[in-house]
Amino acid sequence: MRPADLCNYPSSWFGGGSDVVSEVVISSRIRLARNIAGYEFLPCLPPDRQRQLLNRLKDILLSIDLGNKVFFVDIDQASDVERNLLTERHLISRRHAHGKGPRGVVVAEDEAFTAMINEEDHLRMQVFAAGLQLNACWERINRIDDAIEKKIDYTFDSRFGYLTACPTNLGTGIRVSVMLHLPALKLTGQMEKFINTARDCDMAVRGLFGEGTDATGDFFQLSNQVTLGVSEKQVVEDFSSNVVPRIIAYETQSRQALLEKRPFALDDKIQRALGVLRSACLISSQEALFLLSNVRLGVNLGRIKNINIATINELFMLTQPAHLQLRAGKILDADQRDTLRAEIIRTKLSPN
Amino acid sequence: MRPADLCNYPSSWFGGGSDVVSEVVISSRIRLARNIAGYEFLPCLPPDRQRQLLNRLKDILLSIDLGNKVFFVDIDQASDVERNLLTERHLISRRHAHGKGPRGVVVAEDEAFTAMINEEDHLRMQVFAAGLQLNACWERINRIDDAIEKKIDYTFDSRFGYLTACPTNLGTGIRVSVMLHLPALKLTGQMEKFINTARDCDMAVRGLFGEGTDATGDFFQLSNQVTLGVSEKQVVEDFSSNVVPRIIAYETQSRQALLEKRPFALDDKIQRALGVLRSACLISSQEALFLLSNVRLGVNLGRIKNINIATINELFMLTQPAHLQLRAGKILDADQRDTLRAEIIRTKLSPN
Repeated sequence: MRPADLCNYPSSWFGGGSDVVSEVVISSRIRLARNIAGYEFLPCLPPDRQRQLLNRLKDILLSIDLGNKVFFVDIDQASDVERNLLTERHLISRRHAHGKGPRGVVVAEDEAFTAMINEEDHLRMQVFAAGLQLNACWERINRIDDAIEKKIDYTFDSRFGYLTACPTNLGTGIRVSVMLHLPALKLTGQMEKFINTARDCDMAVRGLFGEGTDATGDFFQLSNQVTLGVSEKQVVEDFSSNVVPRIIAYETQSRQALLEKRPFALDDKIQRALGVLRSACLISSQEALFLLSNVRLGVNLGRIKNINIATINELFMLTQPAHLQLRAGKILDADQRDTLRAEIIRTKLSPN
Repeated sequence: MRPADLCNYPSSWFGGGSDVVSEVVISSRIRLARNIAGYEFLPCLPPDRQRQLLNRLKDILLSIDLGNKVFFVDIDQASDVERNLLTERHLISRRHAHGKGPRGVVVAEDEAFTAMINEEDHLRMQVFAAGLQLNACWERINRIDDAIEKKIDYTFDSRFGYLTACPTNLGTGIRVSVMLHLPALKLTGQMEKFINTARDCDMAVRGLFGEGTDATGDFFQLSNQVTLGVSEKQVVEDFSSNVVPRIIAYETQSRQALLEKRPFALDDKIQRALGVLRSACLISSQEALFLLSNVRLGVNLGRIKNINIATINELFMLTQPAHLQLRAGKILDADQRDTLRAEIIRTKLSPN
């Protein structure tokens, strides 16, 4: 399997079921940062040793049970468009895509597991799941982490825990995050409820593509900041039982308030979004994200019939720039991408 | 006939035929400003004399052949919504609608002739026609003017010509104007071509509702400024043979350039406008004007099929605030108007 093979279908973990939780929580993700004993942190590791480490970790990962068929991508050798595709699918970070030197990624074919080698740390593993499934993510990544640790020694300090290239990850090396769709909180101007809850719980709010990206189209990543002095289980538990349920309640209340107090304004926003998506001949990825977000809200609230969430999710994923170019089989300029994007969306959302 | 009877159909002169000229020139209008000998100009005329003058002019107008059945509206007695309806249909000026004291208007049932009594001058007559028909307008208004002059003396000075309340109208008292639809010049950022041509020819550019109004939705009024030292015939001739043909050529060239060089951007603009009009649940009059303008361009250029210009013209006219309220038979707040407007537009433009 090659990255290009992914460009025609959405990731399995890009969810949004029919229950209240999955309407708000698109996906869950747990990431572990690990470094290998006997190797300097990456900024100090010479290129030949980076290459050696890459091969060693790749071999280990390919030798253990990762719960799914996997494939390896040598990021340094990959084309720009392949690297961008992996980023658009959240399988690698922007840093990994645009970095330098020997580096790679092991990806499960269902995309629910990826392991970046030689990113900021030697090894950064992630497990994804649709909706709110942090416990399942934790069990899976913990099992994989143990299997790796049987084959190689991590840098570990009995007092600090796992040592990481950046002290913000020191200790558990865990980052737990959920991708949230909060259109009603944004529409009703109540984002501070979300932001304050996140801050009170020492959590970070980021955009759709993580660190350093803006929140677009009402999608937000919420993640833990504290990795030292708390157990992984505690972090997962706090997310699942405390923070996320509170935010789901805020968003659900806002949706109800919109339905009751401003039904025309709500329908206007939703129907216009669908109207533009069905008629535009040129559409940017930013605008598509924004409009699809409103249509998603409309489907969730039952204001739009005959369109299902799976179609919306597919469009979110497949209309991204690298996806379009791999689908077209050639490099497209911005105008060409905007034209193809509009065409795909019009076809998929056509009422006939 | 009463003003409210007008609210369900568009004015006959609000045109836009299938020929190149009528695509750009929506309508032609000629206005004459006259004052009656023996009466002071309005600012100095006591209310009882204003009332006397109103009755006298009304009687004269109703006694002569105006080429169509006419009706009289006592503006001082009319309701706000009736006054606004007449303004929206360009039958009276905003000044006349919102002024004070005894004043009225005689309106032909086809709306191609109106005579405001006690506006800025004692008598302001207008003749309208669809497309570019200034000669026909001139012949009609000149004939009416002569018929009135047989019954009453105008204030006339052998050196200056017709005397008017404001010196800008002195001489012929004529204002010739055309309503232009110039979406392609605006889209291609070439409005200065139009503005410069107007300036070079001593003509004024105004918005859709004349003096003091902004140009909205790519509609502009172009009118003469000079009333002294040129004959009425010369003014009409200069419009018909010089200025308007030049502007039509600019707009037509811009449309061609858009079709050839930016067909996707053009279609995007046009199809989005139609998409929003077909799906919005709330729509302001400004936005409706703007979007209908783009759809009109799309129909003119053959990019939109199955919608005819008459439907667009009807929507321009009937979705104005007073029209909506008279249609609903009650006063509507802004939200209610926006909802009704969107509903009417959706229904009229529905593809089924």
